[in-house]
Amino acid sequence: MTCPWERRYAQRMQGMSGSIIRELLKLTEQPDIISFAGGLPAPEVFPVTRFEEATQRVLAEHGAQALQYSTTEGYRPLREFIVEKMSRYGIKARVENVLITSGAQQALDLIGKVLVDPGDVILTEQPTYMGALQAWRAYQADYVTVPIDDDGICLDDRFIEALRAGPKFMYILPNFQNPTGVTLSLERRRKLVQIADHYGIPIIEDDPYGDLRYEGDHLPPLIVLDAEFQEERGTSGNGRGFVRGNVIYLGTFSKTLAPGLRLGWMVAPEEVIKRCVMAKQGMDLHTSSFSQMVADEVAKDDYLDEHKLLIRQVYRERRDVMLAAMAEYFPLGVYWTRPSGGLFLWVTFPDWLDAAELLKTAVEYKVAFVPGAAFHPNAREGVGHNTARFNFSNAQPAQIEEGIRRLGQVLTRVLAEHQEEERDPELVMA
Amino acid sequence: MTCPWERRYAQRMQGMSGSIIRELLKLTEQPDIISFAGGLPAPEVFPVTRFEEATQRVLAEHGAQALQYSTTEGYRPLREFIVEKMSRYGIKARVENVLITSGAQQALDLIGKVLVDPGDVILTEQPTYMGALQAWRAYQADYVTVPIDDDGICLDDRFIEALRAGPKFMYILPNFQNPTGVTLSLERRRKLVQIADHYGIPIIEDDPYGDLRYEGDHLPPLIVLDAEFQEERGTSGNGRGFVRGNVIYLGTFSKTLAPGLRLGWMVAPEEVIKRCVMAKQGMDLHTSSFSQMVADEVAKDDYLDEHKLLIRQVYRERRDVMLAAMAEYFPLGVYWTRPSGGLFLWVTFPDWLDAAELLKTAVEYKVAFVPGAAFHPNAREGVGHNTARFNFSNAQPAQIEEGIRRLGQVLTRVLAEHQEEERDPELVMA
Repeated sequence: MTCPWERRYAQRMQGMSGSIIRELLKLTEQPDIISFAGGLPAPEVFPVTRFEEATQRVLAEHGAQALQYSTTEGYRPLREFIVEKMSRYGIKARVENVLITSGAQQALDLIGKVLVDPGDVILTEQPTYMGALQAWRAYQADYVTVPIDDDGICLDDRFIEALRAGPKFMYILPNFQNPTGVTLSLERRRKLVQIADHYGIPIIEDDPYGDLRYEGDHLPPLIVLDAEFQEERGTSGNGRGFVRGNVIYLGTFSKTLAPGLRLGWMVAPEEVIKRCVMAKQGMDLHTSSFSQMVADEVAKDDYLDEHKLLIRQVYRERRDVMLAAMAEYFPLGVYWTRPSGGLFLWVTFPDWLDAAELLKTAVEYKVAFVPGAAFHPNAREGVGHNTARFNFSNAQPAQIEEGIRRLGQVLTRVLAEHQEEERDPELVMA
Repeated sequence: MTCPWERRYAQRMQGMSGSIIRELLKLTEQPDIISFAGGLPAPEVFPVTRFEEATQRVLAEHGAQALQYSTTEGYRPLREFIVEKMSRYGIKARVENVLITSGAQQALDLIGKVLVDPGDVILTEQPTYMGALQAWRAYQADYVTVPIDDDGICLDDRFIEALRAGPKFMYILPNFQNPTGVTLSLERRRKLVQIADHYGIPIIEDDPYGDLRYEGDHLPPLIVLDAEFQEERGTSGNGRGFVRGNVIYLGTFSKTLAPGLRLGWMVAPEEVIKRCVMAKQGMDLHTSSFSQMVADEVAKDDYLDEHKLLIRQVYRERRDVMLAAMAEYFPLGVYWTRPSGGLFLWVTFPDWLDAAELLKTAVEYKVAFVPGAAFHPNAREGVGHNTARFNFSNAQPAQIEEGIRRLGQVLTRVLAEHQEEERDPELVMA
């Protein structure tokens, strides 16, 4: 007899499946494919030389500390750096409000562990970040969703209806949202924090891309608007604004320094941080001291700010190349968003076109993207089937142009065939 | 109104509290205290220069890869290195059986997520590793415990009785167990895998210290004995031994290279690894590519083996110094284990003595250790109250001698006072 492992798994595993993104990343491993599928930064912009200098300095000056166990909360100078960085966006955090996480993905897992009971409902944008859905499905969460338009999540009757489902929290990506690239307008931001306060529903504000704005003004984070709102109402607690607030803010170094470090952070009321620290102890004791100290050394003396200018320049160009190529090569009837920042844009094909089918043809032409259906939690069959996410940060401009050109050919042919079928009287009668 | 965070936490948070170890680590941060409380490696043995060379090489030759996202399973050359390393202990793993984790602590969390439903019972040694209890309390596990003696977990009626509670799995630290330092005998290892197979209860074999043996012969891991047992019975599956087996094996680089990297691994049947990979995706996407590539570069060309010789030499000396000092300074009536390896030994004080009270006095004398009660899951009030864990890897030999001398003074005084009280007729009558 061999052991019946299949009978041993916890119930929560029934809702868990492999990530489609991950399967798609395997496609990108074929060297000859032009992939718009991943969410990878451009490796050309990694500050490798700066990393070499920083690791040498950290090991030479603090080697024993960098290689030793450390505290769960994170390396204090890095937490102080984050406090300073956050303050520029008006976030009045203290070190006690900051927890270093093993990537922002771990912050999502922590939030699930600390807040979500089986059957709890989470309100998300539709579509939304797949990795959050995956993290919270492990805690047996259910989802209610609210559509987004060009100004972000729609705060109309559909939103109020979703709130009445009694969500444990709402999950919002306000800047250059993954997967659509749209940004929540200032007016809606204000309205959102007020409604959330009114209903007593906390907001998880996930902001991996906020630093990557290519045009227009930075908009205040929800955590700041919530603090201002609490301040006005005199409910902020010791005048420390958000510290008593309704918002948990998530940031990451993955898009500005390097994802390979696995470094993110959470800003939250101190008592929430304390609970998360307890949970994180059992999860990985702490995030790599080595990674934290190296990141701190790389980022300091305003280097991170300078480096962001370079990233913005490179990604802005790639976005513009993709937008221009789509305008040139995509046939009539295909629409796409025009994001002011971030890594992604969102394409909507004609309603009859299935993006997963299109991907199969595209891969034959050595181009890849992510079909949109997987970004729709709890979607009715077919919702989002004609949509797709395109990443513009990873491929180089000439590749972007070439990839979109090939896809334009495929689309033009597919649309022509469809028109042919529509005109074909036999098919119409069938 | 501020938001009622205290009403929002998941039920599982009720069983979670801060780690006593962690609070105790704070004691060790006082620079003038001699601490036997933590489980920290000696910083003197960290191969800092080798790390400097390795990070330079990794960044110069594979910088873009080291800083980029990578696969959840882990860096393939490091997984291959682990396969090779495991094969020396007779573990016939393939790369598909190895998952890299963010420290062995994450492997414990993963096991909880993949296997444990609320109310599931886990069989542990008594006492056992606190961090495992902490990881699995988050999944609302219950515990049944079986005492250990100098040959490890007792496989007598108490063990069979515990099995009849229907545990989901049993958690065993076979080598130089944390916290007691005892090693499971070969005879008991064989018996354990047979009983586990008979009852169909899987074994989690946690082996952070197996490489740190200071005398005697290495004993075969449970995963190997289980594979041999399955082989004999013809149930091993494709002749690949443990691949179809009943044991999940956990290893770590924390005790041999550096804990600050947060690198551990799991060896398990391929289908278990697949489930764990799915769960890990939602937890942190993957373990730091940078840490993994640096560890691989440091460890390779037999460096890890050479380095272990140094660690064994340093820790063996420290263990011997602690044992000799205890023999010299501790009064009659105090007993301790004599571990053949690892980082810890276990002290048993007279039954009337409360180790937590003793710690308070000890800290006044600038010495610290961990009282034993916290290592006893679900213990009846008072079980283990007269025990303590002592770490001998972190403090230097002269400090160890001095710390034990001071504690000997405290103990001698406390024991004398107790005898005084016992003789005092008023107290006896009271």
